[in-house]
Amino acid sequence: MSGHTTNLRLKLPAICFLLQLFTIILFALFVRYDQETSARLWHEELSHHNKSNRDNDFYFRYPSFQDVHTMIFIGFGFLMTFLKRYGFGSVAFNFLIAAFAIQWSTLIQGFFHSFHNGKIHIGIESMINADFCSGAVLISFGAVLGKTSPIQLLLMALFEVTLFGINEFVLLSVIGAKDAGGSMTIHTFGAYFGLMVSRILYRPQLDKSRQREGSVYHSDLFAMIGTIYLWLFWPSFNSAITACGDDQQRTVMNTYFSLAASTLATFATSALINGEGKLDMVHIQNAALAGGVVVGTSGEMMLTPFGAMIAGFLAGLVSTLGFKFLTPILDARLKIQDTCGVHNLHGMPGVLGALLGALVAALATQDVYGDGMADVFPLIANGSRTAKYQGAYQFFALLITLGFAVVGGSLVGATLKIRALGSPPDTQCFEDQIYWEVPEDNQDGYMTAVNSEDAERSASV
Amino acid sequence: MSGHTTNLRLKLPAICFLLQLFTIILFALFVRYDQETSARLWHEELSHHNKSNRDNDFYFRYPSFQDVHTMIFIGFGFLMTFLKRYGFGSVAFNFLIAAFAIQWSTLIQGFFHSFHNGKIHIGIESMINADFCSGAVLISFGAVLGKTSPIQLLLMALFEVTLFGINEFVLLSVIGAKDAGGSMTIHTFGAYFGLMVSRILYRPQLDKSRQREGSVYHSDLFAMIGTIYLWLFWPSFNSAITACGDDQQRTVMNTYFSLAASTLATFATSALINGEGKLDMVHIQNAALAGGVVVGTSGEMMLTPFGAMIAGFLAGLVSTLGFKFLTPILDARLKIQDTCGVHNLHGMPGVLGALLGALVAALATQDVYGDGMADVFPLIANGSRTAKYQGAYQFFALLITLGFAVVGGSLVGATLKIRALGSPPDTQCFEDQIYWEVPEDNQDGYMTAVNSEDAERSASV
Amino acid sequence: MSGHTTNLRLKLPAICFLLQLFTIILFALFVRYDQETSARLWHEELSHHNKSNRDNDFYFRYPSFQDVHTMIFIGFGFLMTFLKRYGFGSVAFNFLIAAFAIQWSTLIQGFFHSFHNGKIHIGIESMINADFCSGAVLISFGAVLGKTSPIQLLLMALFEVTLFGINEFVLLSVIGAKDAGGSMTIHTFGAYFGLMVSRILYRPQLDKSRQREGSVYHSDLFAMIGTIYLWLFWPSFNSAITACGDDQQRTVMNTYFSLAASTLATFATSALINGEGKLDMVHIQNAALAGGVVVGTSGEMMLTPFGAMIAGFLAGLVSTLGFKFLTPILDARLKIQDTCGVHNLHGMPGVLGALLGALVAALATQDVYGDGMADVFPLIANGSRTAKYQGAYQFFALLITLGFAVVGGSLVGATLKIRALGSPPDTQCFEDQIYWEVPEDNQDGYMTAVNSEDAERSASV
Repeated sequence: MSGHTTNLRLKLPAICFLLQLFTIILFALFVRYDQETSARLWHEELSHHNKSNRDNDFYFRYPSFQDVHTMIFIGFGFLMTFLKRYGFGSVAFNFLIAAFAIQWSTLIQGFFHSFHNGKIHIGIESMINADFCSGAVLISFGAVLGKTSPIQLLLMALFEVTLFGINEFVLLSVIGAKDAGGSMTIHTFGAYFGLMVSRILYRPQLDKSRQREGSVYHSDLFAMIGTIYLWLFWPSFNSAITACGDDQQRTVMNTYFSLAASTLATFATSALINGEGKLDMVHIQNAALAGGVVVGTSGEMMLTPFGAMIAGFLAGLVSTLGFKFLTPILDARLKIQDTCGVHNLHGMPGVLGALLGALVAALATQDVYGDGMADVFPLIANGSRTAKYQGAYQFFALLITLGFAVVGGSLVGATLKIRALGSPPDTQCFEDQIYWEVPEDNQDGYMTAVNSEDAERSASV
Repeated sequence: MSGHTTNLRLKLPAICFLLQLFTIILFALFVRYDQETSARLWHEELSHHNKSNRDNDFYFRYPSFQDVHTMIFIGFGFLMTFLKRYGFGSVAFNFLIAAFAIQWSTLIQGFFHSFHNGKIHIGIESMINADFCSGAVLISFGAVLGKTSPIQLLLMALFEVTLFGINEFVLLSVIGAKDAGGSMTIHTFGAYFGLMVSRILYRPQLDKSRQREGSVYHSDLFAMIGTIYLWLFWPSFNSAITACGDDQQRTVMNTYFSLAASTLATFATSALINGEGKLDMVHIQNAALAGGVVVGTSGEMMLTPFGAMIAGFLAGLVSTLGFKFLTPILDARLKIQDTCGVHNLHGMPGVLGALLGALVAALATQDVYGDGMADVFPLIANGSRTAKYQGAYQFFALLITLGFAVVGGSLVGATLKIRALGSPPDTQCFEDQIYWEVPEDNQDGYMTAVNSEDAERSASV
Repeated sequence: MSGHTTNLRLKLPAICFLLQLFTIILFALFVRYDQETSARLWHEELSHHNKSNRDNDFYFRYPSFQDVHTMIFIGFGFLMTFLKRYGFGSVAFNFLIAAFAIQWSTLIQGFFHSFHNGKIHIGIESMINADFCSGAVLISFGAVLGKTSPIQLLLMALFEVTLFGINEFVLLSVIGAKDAGGSMTIHTFGAYFGLMVSRILYRPQLDKSRQREGSVYHSDLFAMIGTIYLWLFWPSFNSAITACGDDQQRTVMNTYFSLAASTLATFATSALINGEGKLDMVHIQNAALAGGVVVGTSGEMMLTPFGAMIAGFLAGLVSTLGFKFLTPILDARLKIQDTCGVHNLHGMPGVLGALLGALVAALATQDVYGDGMADVFPLIANGSRTAKYQGAYQFFALLITLGFAVVGGSLVGATLKIRALGSPPDTQCFEDQIYWEVPEDNQDGYMTAVNSEDAERSASV
């Protein structure tokens, strides 16, 4: 394995410059401030509608946006630092591909959702949606973590964002499914897309890098920073783009209780399935979050607090069992190497969340929702479809998402097999030194400092 | 010391499943969305009172809630990672017991404060209060950190939350004390409760684990993540449930200045009491936060910015001195082993804060508060009691809290002595390996990776 | 180099106590709650103007404040923990000097901006501005990191805050420049001030400490916590004190896109300039943030999203090149030892940001801004000056800022040369042990724990 294939000196600058230049040109041609962001348009709005500056959408969406933003860059970034030798790559490639994905998805989602008179108009909601879309890419990143070059990751982001936009458009605009927290559009799509990419990029010789596929004591603590931030702000994630008022508050509350229950389920299951009754950090870091995924679709609905708890509890249980029993099978039988176990955290809980959403939608009644029906299920409220039909469409949306993810992931995986993209050799996976200047080494650096100082002290006495 | 007593394989799953199941059943029976969270009820409210969705409480409480939530799970969790060998237990048991406590306290507080027509109605304020209550449990956790099993901790949470709810009800609803930031209900109660539990669980042979009771360089940095987040968001903690408007802003400002002053006092005192003039991380990690505790009661009052500074300064001073001089006495004379020094951070500053609250309440005048009196001291504003009486009631509330904490902590401590609860042996305290799968070891894992890679490189040349 | 000169036992307590006491006295004499914070004044406002508690400024500024607060204490604090042996000093001295600076700048900025009838009236905006001012001090701290005692740092804060206040007053109030995100007042001022201090404190023998001037693997990850939080919340920083409504939303959006583009530019350039095509953590940790600095002045203007991207892209490029090519020259030729490379992150991007602000101001037209002109450029809107003049004044403001920074930094640097201030010897720079109780050592502490426990286990068998 010679070094030159992983040398990024010209390739990485080239792709970064090209993608950024291309994005800037498209922004210059198509992207404009929306009515709440443009000085002229907003002030016209103010004078025409007797509004005040404090009615700007900003004040009702920005705190949620910042929580989502934290999840994307701190949450996902640090969650993946559990690997002993891939901390730089985890947090920094996460940073790179999310920074690109939020720009690119602003364009893609803009073309599908806010393209009027030849221009895309953007504001705080488009920023939230762009962050959401980058979340799907980061889920896929989790499946291929440590086995891909940053060039492959940027290309994956380019294609995945595009497919995400199409899938989302079909789900939300064509068939009228609801999915505010993205059980389908984000988690199911991101997970199965990434798993298919990983399948296509299967490495039969990955055992040569297995000694680096674990954690060390402090890398597990860094990962817990990611876990806890994801857990904390998941209520904001699921509620960030729901309707204002009761919808946002209800989504927050459902997610809060679902997560709490999935945490208890995870600790219980983790101790139960370990031979010695010891807890496993991998489970805590991941499965405790399944409660957020599983109410991604139904969180805005009248799920009831105890319903949210049951959902979260089952998700934590299934997710922990997945790490123990399913991940080895995926690897050995299906040749899917899933570094972070995204199938357990995002795949299965995402599918469960989609099914739960279909169920809760099918059970919606006027009695329970009152006039709030119009915000949650506009098509039921205006008589276009019955609750049962809404449930059926929700289920249909899951199938479409799985289709897009599996086909899309396969095609993109095949594209990423191109040798020139700088993929690491099998012996060098999960290793920062291949793409990073890494400080000489942890302990020697420290000991050298202490010793040379002692030496100097002795000398100066 | 045989391993089987600390084996959690059946016990931990059993208690987690039972507690969660029991909670879900009680939620199903009693807990409902409140008027601002239910689709039907909120939309009835909208049409009856000419409100808009943007008038929902959510927008005025949720940012504060998220700051409090961060303090509970990141702040407390990482503050306790200072121990070199107990990082997993610190952040993850914190996670487990807080995830249970927020559910349980929603029920307990609900029964006391929002039980109408046989149902508990919950919304954003009940979420904040549930997080507050779990804060008290986490303070007690700090006193027994490293010396208790997760089963003991869950049982402690179960009982402590219940007692917290009763004490809080007596203070706020029966005797009309004010304590928005919880100097009494949270800090004094949590600290003395935990200290009594620790007293009852006294381990005369704890010296056998002393070599693990310190920090290493990076564990002190992890702890600083907790410290700084607690410090940053303490203004939100103290203001989260005060009245809207000037009260929230004033509480934030008082806490901000109190914390700043306690930080300078802590650095000054830390250097002063160390023989060589060196600063001690333990003081910075803890005593700098005393400024938040000490204005927990008076923060919403017209304390004045310089009054807040004086309070914070004294709290930082007393707290730092406590670490140096009082903690060893508690251990040696009173047989109270206080792992995190919660007596210094929460106990003494909590009592000081209660006394300060009594004083500032007794000095309240119509001239200073104007029409704002009704928000801060409704019973003074409506003529039910004079300012001096309010002050006396505040003092009385402190005594009640100390009584509940000491008696409750003793009883719960006695309960936790049951041998079957999986408590670690004296030789294995402050040690993650007893309850956790711990990666082989820090440096070897790293060195193995580097060396085997070098070996492979040499081989492939 | 004898130890006694760095012993802080009496000096640090003395300066902390004195500064805090002096501040408390000045607060007692001059500082009062403003109209939105005082119980009486706010309720008078409520009754006179038919307002509700929810109209309080608090709800429109506090979430931004908390983001800025996080940047100051977590962002700056952890960004500087990259040094292998100076983690305690980085995060804790950052904590100390910011805790003092926010108090002191409340006074200084209060005298200049809200001194009426002999009193300074403070509220949420003054808290944001105080945090901003401490940001400038922390930038200067970055230049002298590891080479100064906490006493020197507190004195630097005392003087720098004062000069900051004067410079800010001249820029904003005298010549009517706009600089909401502080490209000039914060970044340019803080950087060149700190660089001049570093120049005056030049250490020809600093090579004796070079072995400690690098990072270790995990210290680089701690630093990334700082980087990512700064990156995430920079949109809040630039928008925190702009006018409500479209201005805040537009500033957020411009900053968001500028940062995304600077991230791609940084990765590209970092790989390009490294001989082996490897990425350098120093660049990612710092230059990726240049996109926030460069739109500090123009972010609130109608910069357009693609304009923000171009600005961010160039800033990331220039900043990364600066680390590679300029920092060594500054050190070798100009005798400026810039520990954190603040010239690259804050100096050059700050100057670029000021120039960009002048350009965008000069291009402002009524057609683009509409009635929003009054919020962004009040002096253009009311006809006092043309857009071109505004641009010229902006440029003039940059020159003034550079003048204040260079002259002020030189004078303050000269003051800090006083021997009694406890500066570390050349052989002990970048070393925590000089001012801190440091745990014995990283690995031994860990290994001792493991081994003694194994020994005990063997013994107990």
